[in-house]
Amino acid sequence: MAAGETGGMAAVRCAGKIGVAASVAVNLAFLVMYIRRRYLGGGGSGGRRSDDEEITVVEPSQGKPPVTHDSIVNLDHGDPTMYKGFWRKTGNRATIAIPGWQMMSYFSDLSGFCWFLEPGFEREVRRLHRLVGNAVVDGYHLLVGTGSTQLFQAAIYALSPAEDGTPMSVVSPAPYYSSYPSVTNFLNSGLYRWDGDANTFEGSNSIELVCSPNNPDGGIRKAVITSKSGKTIHDFAYYWPQYAPITETAAHDIMMFTVSKCTGHAGTRIGWALVKDTEVAQKMIKFIELNTIGVSKDSQLRAAKILKAICDGYELLPIGEANRLFHFAQQKMAERWSKLRATVAASGIFSLPNQFSGYCTFAKETVTANPPFAWLRCHKDGVEDLEAFLRKHKIFTRGGPRFGVDGRVVRVSMLDTDEAFNVFIDRVASMK
Amino acid sequence: MAAGETGGMAAVRCAGKIGVAASVAVNLAFLVMYIRRRYLGGGGSGGRRSDDEEITVVEPSQGKPPVTHDSIVNLDHGDPTMYKGFWRKTGNRATIAIPGWQMMSYFSDLSGFCWFLEPGFEREVRRLHRLVGNAVVDGYHLLVGTGSTQLFQAAIYALSPAEDGTPMSVVSPAPYYSSYPSVTNFLNSGLYRWDGDANTFEGSNSIELVCSPNNPDGGIRKAVITSKSGKTIHDFAYYWPQYAPITETAAHDIMMFTVSKCTGHAGTRIGWALVKDTEVAQKMIKFIELNTIGVSKDSQLRAAKILKAICDGYELLPIGEANRLFHFAQQKMAERWSKLRATVAASGIFSLPNQFSGYCTFAKETVTANPPFAWLRCHKDGVEDLEAFLRKHKIFTRGGPRFGVDGRVVRVSMLDTDEAFNVFIDRVASMK
Repeated sequence: MAAGETGGMAAVRCAGKIGVAASVAVNLAFLVMYIRRRYLGGGGSGGRRSDDEEITVVEPSQGKPPVTHDSIVNLDHGDPTMYKGFWRKTGNRATIAIPGWQMMSYFSDLSGFCWFLEPGFEREVRRLHRLVGNAVVDGYHLLVGTGSTQLFQAAIYALSPAEDGTPMSVVSPAPYYSSYPSVTNFLNSGLYRWDGDANTFEGSNSIELVCSPNNPDGGIRKAVITSKSGKTIHDFAYYWPQYAPITETAAHDIMMFTVSKCTGHAGTRIGWALVKDTEVAQKMIKFIELNTIGVSKDSQLRAAKILKAICDGYELLPIGEANRLFHFAQQKMAERWSKLRATVAASGIFSLPNQFSGYCTFAKETVTANPPFAWLRCHKDGVEDLEAFLRKHKIFTRGGPRFGVDGRVVRVSMLDTDEAFNVFIDRVASMK
Repeated sequence: MAAGETGGMAAVRCAGKIGVAASVAVNLAFLVMYIRRRYLGGGGSGGRRSDDEEITVVEPSQGKPPVTHDSIVNLDHGDPTMYKGFWRKTGNRATIAIPGWQMMSYFSDLSGFCWFLEPGFEREVRRLHRLVGNAVVDGYHLLVGTGSTQLFQAAIYALSPAEDGTPMSVVSPAPYYSSYPSVTNFLNSGLYRWDGDANTFEGSNSIELVCSPNNPDGGIRKAVITSKSGKTIHDFAYYWPQYAPITETAAHDIMMFTVSKCTGHAGTRIGWALVKDTEVAQKMIKFIELNTIGVSKDSQLRAAKILKAICDGYELLPIGEANRLFHFAQQKMAERWSKLRATVAASGIFSLPNQFSGYCTFAKETVTANPPFAWLRCHKDGVEDLEAFLRKHKIFTRGGPRFGVDGRVVRVSMLDTDEAFNVFIDRVASMK
């Protein structure tokens, strides 16, 4: 009673109808189309499904609603929908299919270091880092998490409390990622607490979050706390060639990455961490065990296929924009930044952080950084709350106070759809 | 450059080789097989892949290694691999395929109550509860979580702290699920704390966890704390027809379920909660937002397809074991319990909780409960630590102290493979 058999039956019925006299090649091509549409849920073909197909389909969500000329433009989150265009072109090379009986167990690899890590995912992550050259993988434990947000919590759990049993101070130089304070504090843990701007922190027993390129302002960062008792977590969500030149192969104690900002697959909720110390890595695994008993295997498998498609695109397939994710994304970001800088320069009331360039060991040329967020400052008199000011123009952004600084600055996502970005540009251009 | 096109090309080449004179029906059947294997990652066909196929494949993990006559039998976790046999027979009806460009956004449904909940998943969950009749869904908010473990943390977060700001006491009658204490306490939260056995709890401001059928002993439970300030969370992971008769359509404030124990898909890490109060549901959403920024969409879509296959099996397809999950699982559990009870009775040193029956509104007959775990007690002199005793026989179980009771009792998973279960039975039979 499998749908596969039904498909076979339908094919045979269809063969009966068209008759042996018809061109075999044409019929085979039609059949390939039919089976691909039936088993792969559309594959971009669109159109209405037959009743027969309806039985096997559950429709996926479409994300945020499309933007129109006078609708709200929500650039508050860094929702990376910009990447959709690339993945549409990769076709089935990035498609996963999972039969009902696969990956039912809690366990992925009982012989490995991390029992819930899919070996296929680990292999592709290590391959990707070797391709890009942004982080050392040899000698590091690889852990998977439900997004890097879960790994961040796993890491501060693993590094806490201080040796004397008091809570560790979690800090980061302002402007810092707006989620760090809330994620650190929401459970009122006795193990750690948010202690604000690392630049003005004077205590001991700190965990410094080093986000580079920095969310929200795109700056390249090094740890500012250099005491021996200070520990660091490097958040490398944006250390990919489309956002900044790859200038060194990073080798810090804990380095976190996420599929979300690398490939655009935020909905899969998959992140990973490279961790040097075995005990710290074991405590991080313990956190994920207690928090969610491991990480979705379906999403790990999907992420593995996505990362494989990227690596194959550089290592096995012909050179071309449709095969090279980082080149596609870098070009897109460069176009957007060029538009935004021109619009901001013409406005007279806004400014952006200075552009910077560097020699990228991946691109093998000097490239300009194109941060994932615009850190937009307003100099117009009377605009003390830029987030509220833009909201009146139906542009949703995130205001400076959320990042530990003043309200005349906001963070704007540069990763949304072309439509949303263009409407945003038009509205900024109209403000004087 | 999509693999789909390559597949089409291969089909055309293949058509040229076999020639128009050959039987069209046979060729079509071969082609269907070829394409199914190519796009669906095996489909049970096994065998070695060609180099061409290798490019598009990432191998999924296989779970725990197979059990042999003299190997370790790990029945510590309730790894529900028993269900694999059912899902192998459903074929593509339970297969999902996700193209690279789908579900990239963080957002599933901005117009819905829970922004990260896939509408297709919500629809199938509500449909399943209506089919089984184990819980009221109308008038309830539906939330999705990374397994019910995450939802449990979301719920205690939402119900805490007490009105006077002190930590809530989280309790459950012993024997209670071994993870409740560790998951409640691991972050040393100031909002709530584990306070042990609900039967002996004398404070106020409690959250009682009501697990029914109970993990570990299979008992049917009602809340034991009846004070007005006491809140409850109902853990209904095992309230499905294969484990116990469905005797009422439950309608409590917070009811938690998980795909893991209902369908056997532990690796997807998908659970859901039915929540009556809007504010509580909103706080639970906030927890999941801060903890993992939503829940894997891939796994939600897969779970939706799985639940749909179950509902279709009862509502749309012909009656037959291959289509009816709860009947398949109930029969399997009944066979295992019958074997175990006979073996335990013959042993003279072990005992089990009494069997009980009830009229099941789903099965429309009186059925015997078949708990997911055996709560096995040893009466042999000198065996104070049954977990250690069984470990010497290479049987891994979880000892009573982890569940708040004595060490002469252990929890044994009844959900593992036939091989593991049978080796377990043989070993128990050999102990006198």
